[in-house]
Parts: sequence; C-alpha cells; structure tokens
Amino acid sequence: MKRLLLIPIALAGLAAALPAAAQFQKPEDAVKYRQAVYTVMAAHFGRIGAMVNGRVPFDAAAAQTDAEIATMMSKLPFTAFGQGTNVGKTGAKPNIWTDQAKFTAAATKMQDEMAKLNAAAKTGNLEQIKTAFGATGAACKACHDDFRKKL
Amino acid sequence: MKRLLLIPIALAGLAAALPAAAQFQKPEDAVKYRQAVYTVMAAHFGRIGAMVNGRVPFDAAAAQTDAEIATMMSKLPFTAFGQGTNVGKTGAKPNIWTDQAKFTAAATKMQDEMAKLNAAAKTGNLEQIKTAFGATGAACKACHDDFRKKL
Repeated sequence: MKRLLLIPIALAGLAAALPAAAQFQKPEDAVKYRQAVYTVMAAHFGRIGAMVNGRVPFDAAAAQTDAEIATMMSKLPFTAFGQGTNVGKTGAKPNIWTDQAKFTAAATKMQDEMAKLNAAAKTGNLEQIKTAFGATGAACKACHDDFRKKL
Repeated sequence: MKRLLLIPIALAGLAAALPAAAQFQKPEDAVKYRQAVYTVMAAHFGRIGAMVNGRVPFDAAAAQTDAEIATMMSKLPFTAFGQGTNVGKTGAKPNIWTDQAKFTAAATKMQDEMAKLNAAAKTGNLEQIKTAFGATGAACKACHDDFRKKL
C-alpha cells in the first residue's frame, strides 16, 4: 500500500516543480493572458484613480471592490513571463528576461503597494486611499519605465 | 447646512444611477475589458479542466485558487455589455442587445454554476469538482451558442 501511495505524491511534487510557463500551451497564450490581466487590473485601478482625482464621487464600497480585484490581478501576470514568451505583439522589453532579479523586484514592489492600497480601501478613508494609490501608481510607472516598450 | 449637505447626496445618487457603461470612457474600452475578463476566466477555468480531465495531476490548492479567480472574473464582464458597445472586433452577437432578458439569464446561470464550482473546489473533493466543472462548462457553452459568433 505504501508503494502505491508514493506515486501520486511524487507526481504532485513534480507538478509543483514545473515551470509556471507550462501552464500555457503556447507562448502566445502566456502573452495574451498577461495582457488580459493587466487590462483588468488597469481598469479597476483606474476607477479608484477617478475617485482619488475627484472625477467621480467617492464610493467606498466600489473602491473596496476595485482594490480587491486589482490586488488579485496583481498576483497573476508574473507566471506568464516565462522564458520563450517574448513573442508576438508584446510591449515587454527583452531585459525582462536578462535582468530577472530587477524585474522581480519591480513586480514585487507593485504587488506590495497594491496590497497596501487594498488595505487602505478597506478602511473607507479617502485620504489613506489617495496616499496608497499614489505609491502604487509610482510602482507601476517605475516598472513600465524599465521594462515596457514606449507606445 | 441642510441645503449644502443635500448636494453631495444628490450627486452620489446620480452616480449610483449611471449606467455601468459609464465606467468606460469609450465603447472600445468596454469591449477590451470584457474580452480580457473572459481570457483570464478561461485560463483559470481551463486549468481546473486539465485536472478534471487528468491531463495534469490534481492539485487541490491550485484548483481552489483557480476557482476563486474564475469566480471573481465571472462577476465582471456583464457591466461591459452596455448599449453602444457592439463595436470593433467583437464576438458578441447583436441579440445580446435585443434579447437582454435571455442574455442576463444565461449570464446568471454561468455565474451560479461557477459559484458552485468554487464551493466544490473548497472541499478539495475531485468528484465534486468534476460535476461542478461539467455544469459550469455547459452553462458557458449554452451562452456561447446563443450569443457568441462562431469563430
């Protein structure tokens, strides 16, 4: 019985060790996925921005939902930058794959600031949201400056 | 004082009454957003499918995360089908806007089945996940058959 049980455990270990890129059948699928994640993240982050900048009235519940969605999205794109995914119509600069430590640091910074924005949104305090929104936007921009092609 | 206070309340009421499409600056933004949401939803739903169909080993924690993301995505696209958003490169059929009750029912059915899949994923029981995955996939297909152009 012990021997039979070991097989699925070994397989599960192998799955955990698979590179994230293996979640995509083709490199183009990874590109499409990460672009979609950024689109959804930007839409909801932008809605918080509209409140922060006074373009639309502050709605604490909406801001909380938007921050929650943007935070979930912030965790997703970086599994889709595996080796071999610098293909097709991408805004990714090649240094993503040659300077991975710096890219990962920039990505992590954005995720950390977004998590703080999410926490701020839960307080319902617009001033806290403004501060966290600014810091998150700065983290987005810093990563884009270094790792995204100018459009 | 009473008079001054009434103004922001009236504005807030107006914002709540605004159509969901007003969350997008251009109709094309709504199209891009809903397509991105479906891309993210399909990617994570598909990963559960790979486990259900035995193409990859079952990983209960991964299935739970995938179901959580797919469920959050399932709530989002339908704010982006406002009047005037049948534009550009879209797979949406025109009857989305002429048979809205049926479209809403199909969308709601998918959301309900996805929520059940999310609940099943939390149990960690693959058989329950399989059943819920099948029902969710059927709800996706039913809506696509009626409201998405054949590719």
